[in-house]
Amino acid sequence: MKTTTLLATASLLTAALSAAHAADREVGRSPWGADDQIGRLNLMTPTTRSAVLSRIVGGAVYDLSVEYFIGMPSWQAAGDPHYRIWMTHTPHGTVVDDPLGLGKTMNEHVSYTGAAISMYTHMGTHIDGLTHFGLDGRIWNGFSAEEHLGDRGWRVAGVETMPPIVARGVMIDVATAKGVAMLPDGYRVTRQDLIRGLERQQLELQTGDVVLIRTGRMRVYEDSTAYMDNPPGLSLDAARFLVEDNGAMIVGADNLSFEAFPSELDDDYVPLHTYMLAQQGAPIIELAWLEELARDGIHEFAFIAGPLKLRGADAAPLRPIAIPLE
Amino acid sequence: MKTTTLLATASLLTAALSAAHAADREVGRSPWGADDQIGRLNLMTPTTRSAVLSRIVGGAVYDLSVEYFIGMPSWQAAGDPHYRIWMTHTPHGTVVDDPLGLGKTMNEHVSYTGAAISMYTHMGTHIDGLTHFGLDGRIWNGFSAEEHLGDRGWRVAGVETMPPIVARGVMIDVATAKGVAMLPDGYRVTRQDLIRGLERQQLELQTGDVVLIRTGRMRVYEDSTAYMDNPPGLSLDAARFLVEDNGAMIVGADNLSFEAFPSELDDDYVPLHTYMLAQQGAPIIELAWLEELARDGIHEFAFIAGPLKLRGADAAPLRPIAIPLE
Amino acid sequence: MKTTTLLATASLLTAALSAAHAADREVGRSPWGADDQIGRLNLMTPTTRSAVLSRIVGGAVYDLSVEYFIGMPSWQAAGDPHYRIWMTHTPHGTVVDDPLGLGKTMNEHVSYTGAAISMYTHMGTHIDGLTHFGLDGRIWNGFSAEEHLGDRGWRVAGVETMPPIVARGVMIDVATAKGVAMLPDGYRVTRQDLIRGLERQQLELQTGDVVLIRTGRMRVYEDSTAYMDNPPGLSLDAARFLVEDNGAMIVGADNLSFEAFPSELDDDYVPLHTYMLAQQGAPIIELAWLEELARDGIHEFAFIAGPLKLRGADAAPLRPIAIPLE
Amino acid sequence: MKTTTLLATASLLTAALSAAHAADREVGRSPWGADDQIGRLNLMTPTTRSAVLSRIVGGAVYDLSVEYFIGMPSWQAAGDPHYRIWMTHTPHGTVVDDPLGLGKTMNEHVSYTGAAISMYTHMGTHIDGLTHFGLDGRIWNGFSAEEHLGDRGWRVAGVETMPPIVARGVMIDVATAKGVAMLPDGYRVTRQDLIRGLERQQLELQTGDVVLIRTGRMRVYEDSTAYMDNPPGLSLDAARFLVEDNGAMIVGADNLSFEAFPSELDDDYVPLHTYMLAQQGAPIIELAWLEELARDGIHEFAFIAGPLKLRGADAAPLRPIAIPLE
Repeated sequence: MKTTTLLATASLLTAALSAAHAADREVGRSPWGADDQIGRLNLMTPTTRSAVLSRIVGGAVYDLSVEYFIGMPSWQAAGDPHYRIWMTHTPHGTVVDDPLGLGKTMNEHVSYTGAAISMYTHMGTHIDGLTHFGLDGRIWNGFSAEEHLGDRGWRVAGVETMPPIVARGVMIDVATAKGVAMLPDGYRVTRQDLIRGLERQQLELQTGDVVLIRTGRMRVYEDSTAYMDNPPGLSLDAARFLVEDNGAMIVGADNLSFEAFPSELDDDYVPLHTYMLAQQGAPIIELAWLEELARDGIHEFAFIAGPLKLRGADAAPLRPIAIPLE
Repeated sequence: MKTTTLLATASLLTAALSAAHAADREVGRSPWGADDQIGRLNLMTPTTRSAVLSRIVGGAVYDLSVEYFIGMPSWQAAGDPHYRIWMTHTPHGTVVDDPLGLGKTMNEHVSYTGAAISMYTHMGTHIDGLTHFGLDGRIWNGFSAEEHLGDRGWRVAGVETMPPIVARGVMIDVATAKGVAMLPDGYRVTRQDLIRGLERQQLELQTGDVVLIRTGRMRVYEDSTAYMDNPPGLSLDAARFLVEDNGAMIVGADNLSFEAFPSELDDDYVPLHTYMLAQQGAPIIELAWLEELARDGIHEFAFIAGPLKLRGADAAPLRPIAIPLE
Repeated sequence: MKTTTLLATASLLTAALSAAHAADREVGRSPWGADDQIGRLNLMTPTTRSAVLSRIVGGAVYDLSVEYFIGMPSWQAAGDPHYRIWMTHTPHGTVVDDPLGLGKTMNEHVSYTGAAISMYTHMGTHIDGLTHFGLDGRIWNGFSAEEHLGDRGWRVAGVETMPPIVARGVMIDVATAKGVAMLPDGYRVTRQDLIRGLERQQLELQTGDVVLIRTGRMRVYEDSTAYMDNPPGLSLDAARFLVEDNGAMIVGADNLSFEAFPSELDDDYVPLHTYMLAQQGAPIIELAWLEELARDGIHEFAFIAGPLKLRGADAAPLRPIAIPLE
Repeated sequence: MKTTTLLATASLLTAALSAAHAADREVGRSPWGADDQIGRLNLMTPTTRSAVLSRIVGGAVYDLSVEYFIGMPSWQAAGDPHYRIWMTHTPHGTVVDDPLGLGKTMNEHVSYTGAAISMYTHMGTHIDGLTHFGLDGRIWNGFSAEEHLGDRGWRVAGVETMPPIVARGVMIDVATAKGVAMLPDGYRVTRQDLIRGLERQQLELQTGDVVLIRTGRMRVYEDSTAYMDNPPGLSLDAARFLVEDNGAMIVGADNLSFEAFPSELDDDYVPLHTYMLAQQGAPIIELAWLEELARDGIHEFAFIAGPLKLRGADAAPLRPIAIPLE
């Protein structure tokens, strides 16, 4: 594998990690400058993208996203909107209502369907942006809610600032490595699990990777109660292994909400979120669909995705694809 | 350009076009079978994707999508929901409300932001699926609303059935070809405009292309009234040129709603939509952001995108990217 | 009690009941004419209203409605929207966003709060209109969904057609009559329960009454799971006793959803709804707050309420009050 | 008219007014105590209610509310949600979807209609609560947004704290008094207009009245553009006349948004709202339907209404009725 092109960013990363580590339990300050709003997505450059894209081989494409439907899994502990879809226009309803004043003949001939949706931004396959969790009123790079958060979202670091993501993707199939279809409820993936998973797959991580952890939880995606109840997740140490020790740009998983509960820390109920987002400037992908990658044993790929550019939002849906590399 | 790999699908296409043409003003029957729900997206195969991906050169990536924000352009003639975003959790509000029962100290330390959205599915950069417009109660391939449309959308041919889109993209910069920054209000792009645009760009279309038409309308995107009022669009003849004569798989534009108004047909107020979606099985992309492509003179590229998989929906947002080809 | 003023309507009612009964398991045809859209609300006239209003004594007013809040009880089996409220404007957010372009000084001085809501129409204290349930595609008085139901609701018999409700109200406190604070889960109130309750209260029903049944369920209103899980409700025979045998105009209760489950009929999962709404033209009130009435032993009162006039809707919230009669 | 029963509250009111006046341009402090959340609604007592109710004569009831429908007037300058209604269940859609797993036969027999709504709380006939506008971060009685405003609304003084409103109502028909069907666009009702209107109607105001001002604007309610564009409203002096000089408990009008624009004050864009709500503790009713009252020359009545108890909200819809007094 070509790693030389990434050396320049690696030294930059070292500085970043030191900075972030020095002030544990405070938000990270960006090595990319006081104005930086995208954190580790700065690791992407034309050079890193070219390095990945040039290794694409063949025309297989893997779809890493799930469907949105009424009844889909969603985190409901704090009363957020479920996913809802409804019809604003139907061929027959248009005939009855004639909302455009076109008359019955036209409405019977031209059959119009329209729909609308509402949802919490953290539903389906989505990415958590850097504003989602902070510490002590500040987010990554020190931006404060007091100054930057209005009624329509954050005026800095919203998901609309995220560039399209084109990077090397690595899927670590922890479930398969542990010989199970699905990790047990509440299981907390360890550093060792990841090391063994990578050894089994004969892969090494590189700075700038999008790392996706497979717990197998997607087996029960269509049963939202089963999917949501006490899911397996990552340990804080596992996250440190990926980001600080191995340079991951983004870490994701096939579960909701990335973490296992209860928290490992007394004073932080979502320590992986604050670690990743607020301290490391590293977005989190949740509800990634990894089943076909697992079935076909594809562990390394070009990862291509981009969140919907919801101005000011702390998360957004996206539809990632994986294209195998040579 | 390599076109040989596409010859197999071209003959299939000929059959498709004949079938569709035979029954003008009726919905098209799919040459891909009575069960087909995705129409011309069938033109994508591993071979066609490989043909495009193998021509990628370098690491430049163009973002073809716009931002979502309160006040963004939306079609309002029939009373559909505007885009709205609101905060369900803020660092300070969480301290006041304590929605998870964690206590003040925890809520002051762990700063939680969450947001929700609602919208008509035809907002921002999005793709119209085959259920959006039909004729006489039926959509592409003869599926009827009577049988297949429930209160949560279509049970066939919803946008969730669309595979990830990886294809050759061609941007025809009609505005630049005509020497203007933006086509005039209500201007209807002609077949000749497209021919001249392609000649200027020294490009030929191929079967399976995603063709994006630039009218320049995006210059006024942030001013939704200016953007929405009497936009330029395509003529029906221009659409026929692209789909029937040149094999386009998807056609898109930088305007809303693809068409120019008033309609060219007396008995159909959206003739391009019914032609493309219901008769040709060809999705439409609207509100594509083409400004950087135009600025840099990039007219041919790998087009990579995937709509959110909103089960049963007639349209969905997507965030396409363009990667230049050699 | 004065009953003479109601004699005129009683004979009309007899005709109505016969008509409705003749065609059991079909929707009722209105004795008030082929155009009638409000069913038994026709029993209200200036005379009946005057009869009730003239008996008001004193200035006590009882509030019969519950609060709306995130987490409130709602029927979720079919995926309807929960009640949600969110802030569209806050004093501080307005300073950050300046949505009206007024500048920081103005926004800091004039402190603006605005909120928005979304909800299923059958939430909180509400009234079910005659379109909510029909039989075989038709509602009360034979109106068909095919002809009258568009994408924005029914074009006939929507709740906006309901006049303000001013009538004699009678609360039958079944829980107290049976010596319990709350009827057991799944308990089905019988005709005998109602007869005994009325005897205990020394009250007789009159044509045109709004009858409210107290099960005591409101004791657990703030715990939505407890409130919703297998609630007590009415039997079909009890409903017949109230409407057909005693002339009730509206029947309500303090539970959701009026019925007990499972259904008493094999071919109808909500037989009380179809009986009341579709066959008798009698609206149903759900989630009525009757606790203070019970505490003070007030069983007869002027009932005054009006649903929000949601055009075309099948139900709407309302805030009824009860004023004791002499 | 009987005014003696109100004398006790009048002296209390005098204290209230002095307190409020002393600190002009600051929020008012309640004469009803540091915990008071309802302001002038404290003027209602069993005695005042009895005084009004005992004067009711006859059975005429006037409906003072408008309908909710897609396209209805709404204030859109700051991007709030329009009123939307949509069908979550229809008789035919239920047959297609079978959301409850009941099977086709059941769904064809039991015809289910359900709808949902979303809206800004300031739509249709509604009442503005005391949290809607404050000064310098505080609302009526000194409650601060910093301490009391969470993500789900205010934890004090929300509209759910408003008791049912039963009071003497007085409609001042300014339009008719000035000999016009509708006051001109932007017209600002003066103190003199009110005095002349009352003289013409031979009525005097009393402490605790609900005063409704008729501008005639409802003539164009169904045309939302006409209704919303530069409406007539009240002058600040007119509001002072009603509240401070004549003891009104609530003031309302048939327009949106009560005020005329541009503001009379340089440093306050909604001076009547801050005066009424924040300084006087007096709710505002907007979009009251007064046309039948005007037609029949009914100017004095029992006003009976109650806002939906939306916990924490700054406003809520209500459906007031008016019953003529002897």
